[in-house]
Amino acid sequence: MNYKMIGRFIAQIILIEAAFMVPPAVISLCNQETGAFLGFLYTVCMLLAAFGILMLMCRKAPSKLTAHEGLVCVGISWIILSLFGALPFFFSGEAQFNRYIDCFFECVSGFTTTGSSILSDVEALPKGLLYWRSFSNWLGGMGVLVFLLALAPNAKGSGFTIHLLRAESPGPDVGKIVPKMRNSAAIPYVIYISLTVVNLLLLLIGGMSLFDAVCTAMSTAGTGGFGIRNSSFGDFTPYIQIVTTVFMALFGINFSVYYLLLLKQVKHLWKDEEIRLYLGIILVATGLIAWNIGSMYTSLGEAVRHAVFQVVSIITTTGFASTDFDLWPSFSKAIILLLMIVGACAGSTGGGLKCSRLILILRTLRRNIRQLLNPQQVQVIRLNGRVVDERVLSNTNGYLAAYVLILFVSFAVVSIDPINYSVATNFTAVLNCFNNIGPGLEQVGPTCNFYAYSDVSKLVLCFNMLAGRLEIFPILVLLSR
Amino acid sequence: MNYKMIGRFIAQIILIEAAFMVPPAVISLCNQETGAFLGFLYTVCMLLAAFGILMLMCRKAPSKLTAHEGLVCVGISWIILSLFGALPFFFSGEAQFNRYIDCFFECVSGFTTTGSSILSDVEALPKGLLYWRSFSNWLGGMGVLVFLLALAPNAKGSGFTIHLLRAESPGPDVGKIVPKMRNSAAIPYVIYISLTVVNLLLLLIGGMSLFDAVCTAMSTAGTGGFGIRNSSFGDFTPYIQIVTTVFMALFGINFSVYYLLLLKQVKHLWKDEEIRLYLGIILVATGLIAWNIGSMYTSLGEAVRHAVFQVVSIITTTGFASTDFDLWPSFSKAIILLLMIVGACAGSTGGGLKCSRLILILRTLRRNIRQLLNPQQVQVIRLNGRVVDERVLSNTNGYLAAYVLILFVSFAVVSIDPINYSVATNFTAVLNCFNNIGPGLEQVGPTCNFYAYSDVSKLVLCFNMLAGRLEIFPILVLLSR
Repeated sequence: MNYKMIGRFIAQIILIEAAFMVPPAVISLCNQETGAFLGFLYTVCMLLAAFGILMLMCRKAPSKLTAHEGLVCVGISWIILSLFGALPFFFSGEAQFNRYIDCFFECVSGFTTTGSSILSDVEALPKGLLYWRSFSNWLGGMGVLVFLLALAPNAKGSGFTIHLLRAESPGPDVGKIVPKMRNSAAIPYVIYISLTVVNLLLLLIGGMSLFDAVCTAMSTAGTGGFGIRNSSFGDFTPYIQIVTTVFMALFGINFSVYYLLLLKQVKHLWKDEEIRLYLGIILVATGLIAWNIGSMYTSLGEAVRHAVFQVVSIITTTGFASTDFDLWPSFSKAIILLLMIVGACAGSTGGGLKCSRLILILRTLRRNIRQLLNPQQVQVIRLNGRVVDERVLSNTNGYLAAYVLILFVSFAVVSIDPINYSVATNFTAVLNCFNNIGPGLEQVGPTCNFYAYSDVSKLVLCFNMLAGRLEIFPILVLLSR
Repeated sequence: MNYKMIGRFIAQIILIEAAFMVPPAVISLCNQETGAFLGFLYTVCMLLAAFGILMLMCRKAPSKLTAHEGLVCVGISWIILSLFGALPFFFSGEAQFNRYIDCFFECVSGFTTTGSSILSDVEALPKGLLYWRSFSNWLGGMGVLVFLLALAPNAKGSGFTIHLLRAESPGPDVGKIVPKMRNSAAIPYVIYISLTVVNLLLLLIGGMSLFDAVCTAMSTAGTGGFGIRNSSFGDFTPYIQIVTTVFMALFGINFSVYYLLLLKQVKHLWKDEEIRLYLGIILVATGLIAWNIGSMYTSLGEAVRHAVFQVVSIITTTGFASTDFDLWPSFSKAIILLLMIVGACAGSTGGGLKCSRLILILRTLRRNIRQLLNPQQVQVIRLNGRVVDERVLSNTNGYLAAYVLILFVSFAVVSIDPINYSVATNFTAVLNCFNNIGPGLEQVGPTCNFYAYSDVSKLVLCFNMLAGRLEIFPILVLLSR
């Protein structure tokens, strides 16, 4: 293991995190939030100290990185980012952040774009901390290592990029990312920033204040779901809700699609099987839920608005709530539960199992049945017309197995919690953290929070959030050996 | 498709079912239960008529069966067995069986060894019907087609046996069944009957009446779980509970193990990885639950007795209850939920995912991680020292995928039910029917029943029970094309 190389890598990540803490520190200063400002100041000092120490310790490192080291880099970076990212909360002196474990939970939830919170009163927080929460969603959405690579073009072509991109970018890796994009991490970030800005402008047109609009646009872009209001989206106007619905849906689509749009290859889009499935699920789920909850709202329009907002919010794993869906009938809740598992498209900022994995799993299943009937026949599996490599298929099924195992073991451990929450609460708490969504059902529903869980449960949920965001393997590699 | 061959096959199954209805008819006659007796009489007449018609229609059929036809045979046979098997309940005139769908649910639950019931008062039933319920558990445990093959030695060696055994016997088919056993379906049945008789004798020694002991031994042997008391095992003596615990555990072990014991190859047993895992899980789960529920009972001994009874009852998918485990703390319920999924050993009468599948899934996962780190390395997976064929691995992972998909889709459909049961109720109802266990949690807990579900939900649950018992593929093949 090339520890010096990993150390240098993490030093760079630490420096970037310090730089990213300057804007919220300035916001706190302008708003005379002394506690929050000092929180950022102390943390930046500690980050700079850590950077200096790491750089001194890891001089003269070779620049080649193996696949194994790439995975380790990604896993460690995300943990260290979260450990430091939690400090401004802790040092701020806010009563809701008086325990470090709660700050760490909140920060992991931010970077992994989960959006689960331990806060009961978001509106009481200083603006600097609110900005930092939403910014963590935004940064975590596209990936902080990808950001580093976008900044450091000299890393290009060294094999470095590929390993890290593969580890941090979601999806079953079926070569969907356009070759050009693969070599330059900057392109997805340019698209990401542009879309965020358009979202921001539309929110401003809707009458939101600049600060609120910036935070909301960032949380939406990362499909994170950290809100700035205690009622999440319940008190916003229908216009704001609809704009957010559209942008959540857009951020749940594979980013290579926007690249193709830029290249004017619109034709390919309609043939993309993942997008078809993704949009199809949104359409069907919205229809079923709107029919099921119709009688709960004053008009069909309102029911459809809440249905589509919630469906998109959950399938993209954002986790905003326009209404308390825990009060919906069981059927709607069951659909919400299924959407929690499906997740968004590969190569988007959304989490979950991903639509393309679902397609591959279904096709492998169909092939298994066919082979059972005709044992001699050899069949290949295609996605978007291209043959999928058998190793990708094996990894996809392995991913499902790891997913199910982690889900159920975590559920068992969280159930030990002396708070003795209901089975549905514990299960959806784990499911939502693992899929980076946010709110679950019953005692962790949209109007509740994760504060009351014990420290052990919170650590398990943090593990789930990280494992979910990094698609399991980088975290499992850290645990093995 | 060789319809004549399938028709002849089903005719034989129908004849056997008619023969098996004679004992309960005699029991009803002896106990002056006119309604039940007439129910059996009418059904036997209908079965004989169906047998005659089928034999006339399917004369001169070839005797070769393809893998596809084998699967179809198994699927259709089980559905027809259940359709006819429900008739004695329906014709009996019992108030609790006044709707055919309820009778069908009860019968499918019996043959698939699920043990879920629509009855609120079991003790009010005539003895003939009680015997028929328990007998359906017993017959379904080992498989009715295997029974037919045990009777018809002339089918040996024609390729006929293998296809049917493979379709009806549980497990990932890794060549665990001893070659000799594969050619003779009679050996497992001899072992099965012997174990049932020993269980019966031990229950008689414990002071149970002959009728109660016969029914209980049959339900235990099939890991079915149809009880003869409204309180399941709550009112039985600790001795009866302990004897049943031991026998449930024994019936959850691969039957080839008993064959090896007969051949005095004890050495192999200790090396069997599936049995080790199975016993290990029972031990650990019992310890954890006993620790968790200790304060709820008067002594540690009582807590351990209930813990081990429930753990064994659930992991073997029997479904008996010695106490209302829905009142246990969340942690114990979470462990119970995990055990529901794990299931017993392959080649036993138990259902669920099976311990050997769990081993294969875990090992595939470990291999995936290793290959991620060393992409060049090619690795094989072993079970009990033998290399497992890649196709078996692919099928095992495909099985898991099919399992998860059916589980969640069924859950969504059952959630439409206007009765609007809780999410945990609907999920465990589907999980328990699919894994052939019996009682779930909350509104389908050990003290409740499935009566209030709508017809659509009951049909979905029947589908789940059949798909679970036949390990999905024979039922999926029936649905495809």
